[in-house]
Order: sequence, then structure tokens, then C-alpha cells
Amino acid sequence: MPSRRVHQPPSVIAERLRSCRHRIHVKRVHGYLVTNETDQFYLTGFDGEDGAVLVLPRRVYLLTDGRFAEEAAKSAPWASAVVRTGSLPDAVRPLVRRHRLGRLGFQPEHLSVSAHAALRRAVRPTRLVPVPQVVGRLRLIKDETEVAAIVKAIRVAESAFRAVVRGVRPGMTERELAAGLQHEMLRRGAAEASFPPIVAEGVNASRPHARPSDRRIRSGSAVLIDWGATVNHYHSDLTRVIFVRRIPPRLRRMYESVLAAQAEAIRAIRPGVRMCEVDARARGLLKRAGMDRRFSHGLGHGLGLDIHEPPRLAMRVTDPLEAGMVVTVEPGVYFPRLGGVRIEDDVLVTDGGCRVLSRVSKDLDAMVV
Amino acid sequence: MPSRRVHQPPSVIAERLRSCRHRIHVKRVHGYLVTNETDQFYLTGFDGEDGAVLVLPRRVYLLTDGRFAEEAAKSAPWASAVVRTGSLPDAVRPLVRRHRLGRLGFQPEHLSVSAHAALRRAVRPTRLVPVPQVVGRLRLIKDETEVAAIVKAIRVAESAFRAVVRGVRPGMTERELAAGLQHEMLRRGAAEASFPPIVAEGVNASRPHARPSDRRIRSGSAVLIDWGATVNHYHSDLTRVIFVRRIPPRLRRMYESVLAAQAEAIRAIRPGVRMCEVDARARGLLKRAGMDRRFSHGLGHGLGLDIHEPPRLAMRVTDPLEAGMVVTVEPGVYFPRLGGVRIEDDVLVTDGGCRVLSRVSKDLDAMVV
Repeated sequence: MPSRRVHQPPSVIAERLRSCRHRIHVKRVHGYLVTNETDQFYLTGFDGEDGAVLVLPRRVYLLTDGRFAEEAAKSAPWASAVVRTGSLPDAVRPLVRRHRLGRLGFQPEHLSVSAHAALRRAVRPTRLVPVPQVVGRLRLIKDETEVAAIVKAIRVAESAFRAVVRGVRPGMTERELAAGLQHEMLRRGAAEASFPPIVAEGVNASRPHARPSDRRIRSGSAVLIDWGATVNHYHSDLTRVIFVRRIPPRLRRMYESVLAAQAEAIRAIRPGVRMCEVDARARGLLKRAGMDRRFSHGLGHGLGLDIHEPPRLAMRVTDPLEAGMVVTVEPGVYFPRLGGVRIEDDVLVTDGGCRVLSRVSKDLDAMVV
Repeated sequence: MPSRRVHQPPSVIAERLRSCRHRIHVKRVHGYLVTNETDQFYLTGFDGEDGAVLVLPRRVYLLTDGRFAEEAAKSAPWASAVVRTGSLPDAVRPLVRRHRLGRLGFQPEHLSVSAHAALRRAVRPTRLVPVPQVVGRLRLIKDETEVAAIVKAIRVAESAFRAVVRGVRPGMTERELAAGLQHEMLRRGAAEASFPPIVAEGVNASRPHARPSDRRIRSGSAVLIDWGATVNHYHSDLTRVIFVRRIPPRLRRMYESVLAAQAEAIRAIRPGVRMCEVDARARGLLKRAGMDRRFSHGLGHGLGLDIHEPPRLAMRVTDPLEAGMVVTVEPGVYFPRLGGVRIEDDVLVTDGGCRVLSRVSKDLDAMVV
């Protein structure tokens, strides 16, 4: 069963744990409790729910409940599985005692105020120390295995898109198109859609996150489609606008401006460039077209085990790009009572610049169906 | 567009806000910040992402970003929409000042330690006061509109199941069956599957949360299918086991025991009975069949706007059932290297007892395809 195989080679897992332990050492804690599920998968290869991972200098514990006991042993043989029957604090307490952990690091961005209070009471006198961004920082930079997984998720999404677009006919509803797209992704090996696809005809596309309705696609329609596939836990995220039979003149201008803005942004992507600078390139070009005020969201976001993850390509983010980051580049403009255009591709930052990972055509002429 | 209509009648929203305000009053805070997205939808009817709701005695603020501005105004006309450009704390601060809130309640179970620290700094000298379970408590009891929505989500799932089961043939893979099931749900109006369906053939069903693989269904197969639909934000959650051509004798015994355990549990459901008591009924019956140790999870969970929500029908939960709760009842037994059987229905607690909302057949003979 693909999704329960050992996903990462042991060497990859070992390297991630080593990096994690190094940061723990620097922060002078005796162990690190990972409560974010995606981080748990990243560090151990175990993809069950309802768990936690405790990383110690020489050992890794995987806490889970009875439903996932068999999976835990199979998918993460390097971890000691602990099947908990009570609450998470009740399961952590004996481990903290056994290993005499004086200072236990936790993920402040992934532990609620309530859960923190309960854990603190349970492990006393052990001190809980917030250690943010340990795994998140590692996950920013994708290794080769991860890039390959993202590319696979992109290919599945692209192939499904091509199959569905061939069948678009006036009279179809947004919902039918969205259902068909999901079905084609699942048939091609996606575990699920990365998110419920957005299929927005005409004026519906003026809302960036419209949801598919029973609205019908007509001749002369512009249809915005934002979709992605999840394959082996990694996501893809793409947007295209298709035109049925013909391209309305105002939509043509919008499309050309957005496409040029995207190209401009992509040209700017290379290690060392600040996130806001890339966003500003796209925004600047749209400004010259008089449309920057209609670009009501950030330029893009990181993509990987989560569909939205750091970094953010947005106006106020001054961090620099680094090689190995994978980001979406998705400028869009939205005119109420008219419609919207967004074009989105997935881009890998490389040592020398970047590589656009997605391939499905976005030439205006190719978008007419 | 159905999913952006005003979903609840204004009177329902008004009643929810009134209950929420009463609890705020009791807790002596001057406002309540709702950070959980599902709770935000429940209180306002707004279903965008990336928001927060601030409930004041005479006003409701809806904080969201530019992508959702149009939706916010449409779906929650009773709330004052605030489009934020910076962080959430930056958006909350001026409101706290303007209304001179001395004590601001927050959801400790839905605010991370990091977010709490940032918010506390931003609103100083206003004090943040943890006020748990305000909306969660309300959501435990479903009103008529909600029960109707859940029933609709069940009907869509059932109708899709019947359509797919008719087409099951030896040679199909688990993945194909799962993809077909999702497609049929979407075609019937589901916004999405409540979760990626579990389709587990033969020994694969020994793991309660198996994922669909390329394993083929054969003659003599038992196939466990756990699926549900999301319709208008409400979920359904069902499990059936089908048998291809014939029923293996050991699976027959398992099936009969699980079905009897489920019936026993359902008979016990009525207001005032403790959650653990209902779980114990099913567990007791499986014990007499010598299978209780193979029942490795709780009996059921609440169902509504979240696919898993309180209450939990489980061993250590001593809270009483109340009329208006909707819960799954899903005993199961799992034998490594043999397979598993789980039967799951969705049940409404009524004044006089309970009503099983799901209808798709579970008679053993009807499960042979």
C-alpha cells in the first residue's frame, strides 16, 4: 500500500533527525515534543493521526493510539512506538520521568494554550520551553526526494486537467467540471485533491476563493480553475483560466497583464532576493496596466507537505529566498461584476535562479476550448 | 452559489449570538475573540478562511483579508467586516481600543501559545482571559436546521454508495472504488468528501484507518468502506462492509457480532445515559463473542460542522448524552492477517431515545454484491 510504505529512505530520516537534534542542543533542552502532525510525518515517516513525537538525543518515541499501532511499527521502525490509552500528557509524563528530562522543548506555534497548560501540569517539575520553527525551518528547504514528490503531484494534476478540459462543453456546470477534475486526479493516483477545486465561471471568478456552483458554462465564458493533487503526501497547486469558444476583449487584457506580471516575478526569483521584492515585481507590472488595486492577495506561498506553508511571497516579507524553496507564483486581478484572472505555477528556487516545475500551457491561444 | 448564500436564517444566527453573549456575560469579559474557523461560521454564517470574529455585547466584527471581503459582506450582513492587511493582532488592537475592552475573552483550545503571546503584547493593557467551550458547548446540541443538513449529507453519501456498489466487480482496485465513490458524491451535490474514503480489501481492513491502494478486489473479498459527504458544511460518516460473491465464514461471525454490538449500543442511547455506558454496551457484547480486545477504538464521536467533534462515546467519558446530539456509532473488530469489520451509522439523540439517521442497508445478506 503506497501510502503506508516507508516513504523516505532511512538516510533522509536520519539526516532530518540529526538537524533537529542539533537545534535542540543549541536551545539547551533535553528533548523536543513535536505536536504538529505534518512535522511528525516529516521527522519519522509515520502518517497516522492523533500522535506526537518525542525526539531525545539518542531515541525517538512515537506516541499514538490503538488505531494506528500497526502502521506505526511498519512505517517508522526507527522509532519506539508507545500506544497511549489516555491523554497525551498522561503518555508524555512517564517518558519525561524515565529519561529525567529537566527542560522539554515544545512547538509554541502548534500547541494550544489549553494543551500547554495540561502538559505543564502533567510533567511538573520538568520545565516546558518554547522552541519555535525547528522543523518548520527544515521544511522550508526541499531535498531531492521532496522535489520529485511535488513534481509527481503536479504531473497528476496537469494530466487530469488536460483530460477534463478536452471535455468542457457549454451547458456543463462549475460543479460538474470540479467533480470531473477530482475524479481524474484520483484515477491517476492522487490520494485526494489538495483542496476542493475552485471552478468559477464569469463573474463568479471575481471572488478569489469562489466555490463551484450549479452555474453553467456558456459559449464566451471565461472559467477560472484552481486545483491541485496530493500524491504521497505532497501537494501541487495550479491555476488556469480557460475560454469557451472565444475570448472577451476585457478578459484578454486582464489575462495578458497577469501573464506578464507572472513572467516578471518568475524572472526575479533567485537565492538572496527578498520575498517582498518578487511580489513587488508582479505588482509593479500590474500597476503600469492600471490593475494593481485589483490584485488583492499576496503573490504566492510555500508548497510541500502542506498546501500552504512558509515562506510567503508578499508585500511585507523581507526574508530572502533560498535554494530549495518551492513556491507558488500566482498573481491575479478581480473585477466585481466582471470576473477574474489568476495564473499560478509552482516554482523551485535553484542555485542559479529558479525552475518552473509546472508545464501545463498558459499561452492565451491554448486556453480557448 | 449555494456555498456562499446566507446559510442560516437570521433568527438562528441571532439566537447563537445571544447564547454566546450570555456566557460571555457570566465570565465577566467585555468581548470574545473567536479564532476557530468552524466556530466563526457557526456564529456568523461567514465561511471564508483566515478570519476571526470579535463578539461584543452590541456588535459583531468579522476580521478577514482582502480575498474574502466580497464574501464577508454577502454572507454575514449582520457583522461589521474589517478587512485586515497586517497580522491578526494588528487588526484586533484598534477594535480593543475603540471599545475600551478591559478584559478580552479568547478560545484557549483554539489559540496557539505563539499566537496568544503576540496577541497579549498587541492589546496590552487589555487582559486576555481564557474562556473555553463557549461555542463548542453550543455546537454540541444541533437545532433542526443542522439535523436537516446532516441528513442531507447522509443521503448524498448513501445514494453515491448504492450507485458505486452496484458496479463493484472482481478486478477493481480499492483506489478505483474510492475514486468512484468520491465522484458520485460530488455529482450529487457534495462540496467534497468528508474525508478521503477508506476502501480496504481483505487483510487491509485489519487497520482501522487503512488507505486505498492498488490492491484488487477478488471474488470472496470482504471490502470495508468508510466514507461520508460534506454538503452545505455539514458532514456524514458511514461504514459498511461488502462481500463479493460470498461471505467467508470467519468474516460472517465477525460481522454478526459487530452488528449485534451496534444494535445493543443504539438501544442504550437516550438523554441522561453516560457516554461510557453506551460504549460499554457494545464492548460487553463483543466480550461475550471473545472479540472485545479486537475493538481497538472508541465507539463513536460527534458529527456536524466538523467530521470529528465532541462528544466522544468512549470508555472514560462520563458525561451524559443530551437530546440534540448527533453521534456516530461504529463498533469494529480487527484481526491482523485476516481483516476487519466495522459498521457505522449516524444517530440523533431525541427526547425519548434516539433516531438512526442513516438508512443504507446493513443486513448481512444485503451486503453480498
